[in-house]
Amino acid sequence: MLRSKYFLPILKENSIHSSVISHNLMLKAGMIRQHASGIYNWLPLGLKVLDNITKIIRSNLDKAGFIELLMPCVQNGDLWKESGRFDVYGQEMLKFKDRHNHDLLFGPTNEEVITDIVRNNIQSYKELPKIFYQIQWKFRDEIRPRFGVMRAREFLMKDAYSVDLDNENAIKTYNKVFETYMQIFRELNLKVIPLSAENGPIGGKLSHEFHVLAKTGESTLYYDKKFDNDNSNDLIYDAQLWQGVYAVTEDKYDKDQCPLQSDEIKIAKGIEVGHIFNFADRYSKTFNASVNDVQGKVVNLHMGSYGIGVSRVLAAFIEAYHDGIIWPENIAPFKVSIICLNIKDKKCYDLSTEIYQKLIETGIEETLDDTSDRPGAKFAVHDLIGSPLQVIIGSKKAKNNIVDLKSRANNKVEEMTSDMVICQLMNSLNVL
Amino acid sequence: MLRSKYFLPILKENSIHSSVISHNLMLKAGMIRQHASGIYNWLPLGLKVLDNITKIIRSNLDKAGFIELLMPCVQNGDLWKESGRFDVYGQEMLKFKDRHNHDLLFGPTNEEVITDIVRNNIQSYKELPKIFYQIQWKFRDEIRPRFGVMRAREFLMKDAYSVDLDNENAIKTYNKVFETYMQIFRELNLKVIPLSAENGPIGGKLSHEFHVLAKTGESTLYYDKKFDNDNSNDLIYDAQLWQGVYAVTEDKYDKDQCPLQSDEIKIAKGIEVGHIFNFADRYSKTFNASVNDVQGKVVNLHMGSYGIGVSRVLAAFIEAYHDGIIWPENIAPFKVSIICLNIKDKKCYDLSTEIYQKLIETGIEETLDDTSDRPGAKFAVHDLIGSPLQVIIGSKKAKNNIVDLKSRANNKVEEMTSDMVICQLMNSLNVL
Repeated sequence: MLRSKYFLPILKENSIHSSVISHNLMLKAGMIRQHASGIYNWLPLGLKVLDNITKIIRSNLDKAGFIELLMPCVQNGDLWKESGRFDVYGQEMLKFKDRHNHDLLFGPTNEEVITDIVRNNIQSYKELPKIFYQIQWKFRDEIRPRFGVMRAREFLMKDAYSVDLDNENAIKTYNKVFETYMQIFRELNLKVIPLSAENGPIGGKLSHEFHVLAKTGESTLYYDKKFDNDNSNDLIYDAQLWQGVYAVTEDKYDKDQCPLQSDEIKIAKGIEVGHIFNFADRYSKTFNASVNDVQGKVVNLHMGSYGIGVSRVLAAFIEAYHDGIIWPENIAPFKVSIICLNIKDKKCYDLSTEIYQKLIETGIEETLDDTSDRPGAKFAVHDLIGSPLQVIIGSKKAKNNIVDLKSRANNKVEEMTSDMVICQLMNSLNVL
Repeated sequence: MLRSKYFLPILKENSIHSSVISHNLMLKAGMIRQHASGIYNWLPLGLKVLDNITKIIRSNLDKAGFIELLMPCVQNGDLWKESGRFDVYGQEMLKFKDRHNHDLLFGPTNEEVITDIVRNNIQSYKELPKIFYQIQWKFRDEIRPRFGVMRAREFLMKDAYSVDLDNENAIKTYNKVFETYMQIFRELNLKVIPLSAENGPIGGKLSHEFHVLAKTGESTLYYDKKFDNDNSNDLIYDAQLWQGVYAVTEDKYDKDQCPLQSDEIKIAKGIEVGHIFNFADRYSKTFNASVNDVQGKVVNLHMGSYGIGVSRVLAAFIEAYHDGIIWPENIAPFKVSIICLNIKDKKCYDLSTEIYQKLIETGIEETLDDTSDRPGAKFAVHDLIGSPLQVIIGSKKAKNNIVDLKSRANNKVEEMTSDMVICQLMNSLNVL
């Protein structure tokens, strides 16, 4: 992608509207623009990152046997009356009427819709278990939207719903989703703490939240300091190990019940990026969603729901790891920024274009900065947008086919020939 | 994908709710289920087809230099008041108020939103031309939703918006989009007629509609019979040639002005799958969306908008070419159905599984029917879901590693060894 043809509206000043670093950086880097309070346009760069995160989530869910479908954004109010949540969900639910005066709403979640699909299309225990998922825009009419896409009103969510014959199997499914989530967060390079949580308005008794540690987080977490130890990655990513370690949300914390000594407990702030629920027959009973079991007996299904806030994950990533934005390779909108320092110098420009063309052939996502900006401005832009690797081509070195390869993560610069830099990039990005 | 693990709720009876063949077949094949009037759940099989169509559209737009972004579903009513369309758009626009009593709406189209982005982020002629696009769910509150996803209220649309310095460049861009559209429809295996059309409420003077010929179409088309000739594909797909050939929508047809003799004109029914508009400075003037030109003079931008009804394309395809559903390979949800006729026969089952595993390795999307259904029922299901190729494995032939390969398009069946069938499939599907 040539920067001159792309749409990358960089802001030089910090936005007066942003209260957290991720919001500010996303605005400055031209990833998002606010459309209305808590409602955002995703500009090309932001959408690329969102798509990359989505791909990682989707590939892990597909691998684990989850089945993708897509429910509508606009939902029928009648189903919510049937579940009893139409009036109790509160003002966060955006309700409206169509031209024929029917009650509709912009879906904040989909337990009612999926249970309706299940009761109409699954009849036998032989069709179980099933885990459905979708990646879809939701709307929650937050009273005070804030922190950019972190607490937006319209947001992208991966929501999954499981269907099992009985609660024993439902718990197995719950644990499977848990493990899949930990694998997803690991691949997203996000360190999360899984915490026992309250079920709240979704219903049921078993629930966990997944939090990214960040000072700007709005939730308070209570957990065993073991999670902060050097080897905590092993602890977190081993789904057997974490179960024995204390970690709860604020709602669930009870000082008198806590098994930890005061020097063993850590209290920290976190950003919720995932939440999973087992709600047994809460919806299937109301909706009469049942199947015939092995003996031919009609039994209510046991279900769960499982969310990941996709657009929030993006912001949480910046919030937790920022020094500016440094994307890991699998999330970066451009893996490589090719920075031509002087487009008017023919040799410099030609060498930049040659490297650009070769990278296109390898399939590596890249951008060539072919604008007439000054070098300092170009360095600032590419540091800002967070490409993990930068190839810097100046007039003087270009004469001898020499370029600089910079790693954004550690700012290390290596000088090498233009041929070598292609090999080096393919090697670093595992394209070979 | 094992059919036993998948979610493919086949209906045996024709639906009493369907009035056209595409709606009926999509319900029967388990592609969609109605959620509310004109609002649909996309079940796994339907979503796969929708994704495949989306990929073809996206890859052509990206290749042509269109830039993808994503605007929100919920739009700010204030922008529509600014353009003057808030009150005149009529009851098809789904309006509502948020908890703070602000006017919002579910976007039926995005001219206002993109013009707002452009005026705030593009300052110079150097940044032009630009063509932005998004693939996003829209809502139009049709008074009488009908024909399944063909005239639904919530529907998937690819909408693009172009920004040029003056109208001469805007017309060049319009023609470029036109050519890209014809390329997209060709790749989708859809024969479309491009017709000169009225601009209507979008504004401007230049507009074309793209229609798929189908008896169930709701539009009446008036066009030169040349389009129906054998060589019409050349005519249609050559963007220079079509411009000299008469074709207009009903609104635009005027018997007295028509240059054709009565035996040269064809009047037929069509399904609108695309619509493109040049509306010059209709929005840029109102929104004060301007840039500095080469002389430093402030000029209003010239813009256009360009839609393809993605979910409608899917239905139109079935409507135009149905004999049951026969997907072309690039749209098919499964390229190959492997039909194991007797899962209880070990050799038959093992051979089926072996072929299935080998196909997974090649990356060909396939389904293995490992259910206990009877052979006749399995044949009916796989004809219904439209896999272009079927590998049929019966107990008797399996003993000698012999299988049948059936082509859905012509019902031709060839007997061959199980090794040969893999080569044959890879060959047919261009995987080699």
